[in-house]
Amino acid sequence: MIKRRDTYNVDVGGVVIGSSNPIRIQSMTNTPTEDVSATVDQIKSLFDAGSELVRVTVNNEKSAKNIINIRNLLIKYNYNLPIIGDFHYNAHILLSDYPEAANVLDKYRLNPGNIGTSSKYDDNFAKIIEIAIKNAKPIRIGGNWGSLSKQYLENTVIEGQKADDYEHIIKKGLIDSVLKSASYAEKLGLSSDKIILSCKVSSVPQLIDVYTEIASKCKYPLHLGLTEAGMGDEAVVSSVAALSILLNQGIGDTIRVSLTPDKMGIRTKEVEVCRNILSSLNLKQYKPKVISCPGCGRTSSNYFIDLTKDINNHINNSMIEWKSKYIGVEEINIAVMGCIVNGPGESKHANIGISLPGTNESPSAPVFVDGEKVTTLKGDSIKDEFIALIEEYIAKNYKKVS
Amino acid sequence: MIKRRDTYNVDVGGVVIGSSNPIRIQSMTNTPTEDVSATVDQIKSLFDAGSELVRVTVNNEKSAKNIINIRNLLIKYNYNLPIIGDFHYNAHILLSDYPEAANVLDKYRLNPGNIGTSSKYDDNFAKIIEIAIKNAKPIRIGGNWGSLSKQYLENTVIEGQKADDYEHIIKKGLIDSVLKSASYAEKLGLSSDKIILSCKVSSVPQLIDVYTEIASKCKYPLHLGLTEAGMGDEAVVSSVAALSILLNQGIGDTIRVSLTPDKMGIRTKEVEVCRNILSSLNLKQYKPKVISCPGCGRTSSNYFIDLTKDINNHINNSMIEWKSKYIGVEEINIAVMGCIVNGPGESKHANIGISLPGTNESPSAPVFVDGEKVTTLKGDSIKDEFIALIEEYIAKNYKKVS
Repeated sequence: MIKRRDTYNVDVGGVVIGSSNPIRIQSMTNTPTEDVSATVDQIKSLFDAGSELVRVTVNNEKSAKNIINIRNLLIKYNYNLPIIGDFHYNAHILLSDYPEAANVLDKYRLNPGNIGTSSKYDDNFAKIIEIAIKNAKPIRIGGNWGSLSKQYLENTVIEGQKADDYEHIIKKGLIDSVLKSASYAEKLGLSSDKIILSCKVSSVPQLIDVYTEIASKCKYPLHLGLTEAGMGDEAVVSSVAALSILLNQGIGDTIRVSLTPDKMGIRTKEVEVCRNILSSLNLKQYKPKVISCPGCGRTSSNYFIDLTKDINNHINNSMIEWKSKYIGVEEINIAVMGCIVNGPGESKHANIGISLPGTNESPSAPVFVDGEKVTTLKGDSIKDEFIALIEEYIAKNYKKVS
Repeated sequence: MIKRRDTYNVDVGGVVIGSSNPIRIQSMTNTPTEDVSATVDQIKSLFDAGSELVRVTVNNEKSAKNIINIRNLLIKYNYNLPIIGDFHYNAHILLSDYPEAANVLDKYRLNPGNIGTSSKYDDNFAKIIEIAIKNAKPIRIGGNWGSLSKQYLENTVIEGQKADDYEHIIKKGLIDSVLKSASYAEKLGLSSDKIILSCKVSSVPQLIDVYTEIASKCKYPLHLGLTEAGMGDEAVVSSVAALSILLNQGIGDTIRVSLTPDKMGIRTKEVEVCRNILSSLNLKQYKPKVISCPGCGRTSSNYFIDLTKDINNHINNSMIEWKSKYIGVEEINIAVMGCIVNGPGESKHANIGISLPGTNESPSAPVFVDGEKVTTLKGDSIKDEFIALIEEYIAKNYKKVS
């Protein structure tokens, strides 16, 4: 069991973020926010994929003006999720000029690196916080090492500085800037349970370093993610590595995986990665787990691979129906194993498991239910019979939705 | 910097595994070992993909007999990597009857759960260790929770036991069985730097638990992996989560990712995942990193996605040539960013970075080299010009291979 770091709990439009609550998945649209219909479609698809909160850029007047239309259209479609506004440079202007947007957004994301130059920072920030207080909205103070304030860097970094020192300065600057902004927000009257922090960098070891430090320095919930992970498998692996390591230490209350998508408009992959992270750490189970062996020279046929695929497909196709009928069905564990070495053993650990014969083993497949061998399947209908046994197990062992 | 747990260092056919050495990637063939040509082809492709050691099943007389032919064919193709024999049930027989196999294999993998029933375990194990000593070979004592010895379970598990106790018993049994076998091997005369251990389970939290405990109980190097991860993205995420968390704690000296492949014969994916894990934790860099942003409503065109793809493709296509010409070229970091928020900042952190204009930003792309803006690109040839700048940077900054 992972022991979560103790934090305040911040209500973001009904989804509470903090250590007394599950770790929340979030994502961000990549449609222009002024395009209401495209943005609403993407929000819907992100929510359907499992994003519990969605962030949209509010980068100009048109976007700010359309926030209310996005909200109304979502309500019309019966999508009642928290929408977060992502602001840079002009939050104080847009939130003042578009009070409806300020009112229907569920959280404002602010970047301390671009609230304004040093002479204007305090005033701009105070204006934003005043609006947040008036609307009873929480904020995220989200620092990125790619947008650390120029003044800070210029005042701190000395020409010809060594790379190690430079990294140290960036880390210190990132942490200091979000903590200072948070403390200023509280001084201005925002309550401590209205603040979430993030300190994003692109490198996994640096992210671990930065979050370990900031986690020890405050009680605000932390939004966790690499700022720019890149594209493809490398980006997925980096994101999983970074987030798993920190979550396993109890650090992180809401997560986002930032992947460069393969095409604009395709965005749900990052939500799937988040779900898989939470599920692999047993923080949440979304659907039955299928344990299957990698195969080796003992399992030299495609049969066990095909059966694994069939079972995975059956689960994916049945999940909506199962969930509507049985309570807790997502917790079931299924094993599809390819030979006698770990087959019966692994199958016994699962709720229901099948151990297929390896090369030169007798052509029969024992099925285990809760550790006990219940039958042995043979012949051409193994797949259908095993699926029937899974269905039977579910019907027998999970309470019906009333 | 990750501090590795202090271990013995075990020489496996020239590739040394242990805390004074890099973390080694390994994989396992899924061809029938009696099919020499298919097995050799797969070993070559796994090695080319980055598997520093490859394991093959030695499950019957034909396989054992063909080990020498596999080795000879590999030598003929100039593939000089360690080959590990994976034994279950009949290691004592096959290693006795096929001394050539015992001689040319670089490590024997033994599973304490199936060396023989309790009355025969000691004799069978002693015979194997005698052969290992005679041939100066190391062994891996590899326990799996799916093949924990039946006697142990039958003697320990009481009917009607609660699930929690059962898990505790499995964990204790798994750790005890490999440690007891290791201590018996040493008693029989095998030196402590000839032993590697593994204790594999399928669940991420349990793997972390088991490896944290066994790591504290011995100085043997540890082979790290989930025993059965499953198929598809879920399996990749589980494997990355488990391995990253443990590697980040300094635990693990050689890794394997066990994925159910999409088809028999396709096997390199698991090696790629291993490489991406090591590279994301900065334990090893194989090729230039491309940092690219996820895009949002500010980057509403496919241009930065396409440029990221082009740069990734250019790296993949150039890597063999670059490596043959420049020392350390794999260490370069490149940034491709989509708007002004983090674009210039992130580009400055990279060795060479480009910050593309977001929506409504002026249509020009500053390029940064080692933190300094060197030029601004515009128009249709941004891609070619940026690639030329990357090539120039490499030629100027990396020492030529002499």
